[in-house]
Amino acid sequence: MSVKVYAVTGMTCDHCVAAVRGEVSNVPGVTDVNVDLAAGRVSVDGTGFTDEQIRAAVDEAGYTLVAT
Amino acid sequence: MSVKVYAVTGMTCDHCVAAVRGEVSNVPGVTDVNVDLAAGRVSVDGTGFTDEQIRAAVDEAGYTLVAT
Repeated sequence: MSVKVYAVTGMTCDHCVAAVRGEVSNVPGVTDVNVDLAAGRVSVDGTGFTDEQIRAAVDEAGYTLVAT
Repeated sequence: MSVKVYAVTGMTCDHCVAAVRGEVSNVPGVTDVNVDLAAGRVSVDGTGFTDEQIRAAVDEAGYTLVAT
């Protein structure tokens, strides 16, 4: 189990937060997702997921992962 | 049939647009809703609806109607 923190751009409101949380939560191995809208930070708990999977999920939600 | 244009604050992204469109579309008599995100402008087509109904729908979506 680990927590990884990612920087995500483009999130402007709670709907954006929900969209990112929803997509990232679907990545296998992810057990919890917390989004700090003001900071543009997404914290992902779990095990066995890769940065690329998180990047793809963020992209699917319509946002951009800029740093891991 | 008439088109009324309202100024709405707080919309920041396409999710916000969809939320406002969804709520305002549910007002009886409304036949079409167009949202200009950049301008913060909501155009409502239809007949028989009141400004107060539109204000309530915008509020329900989580935003604020500031001018009619």
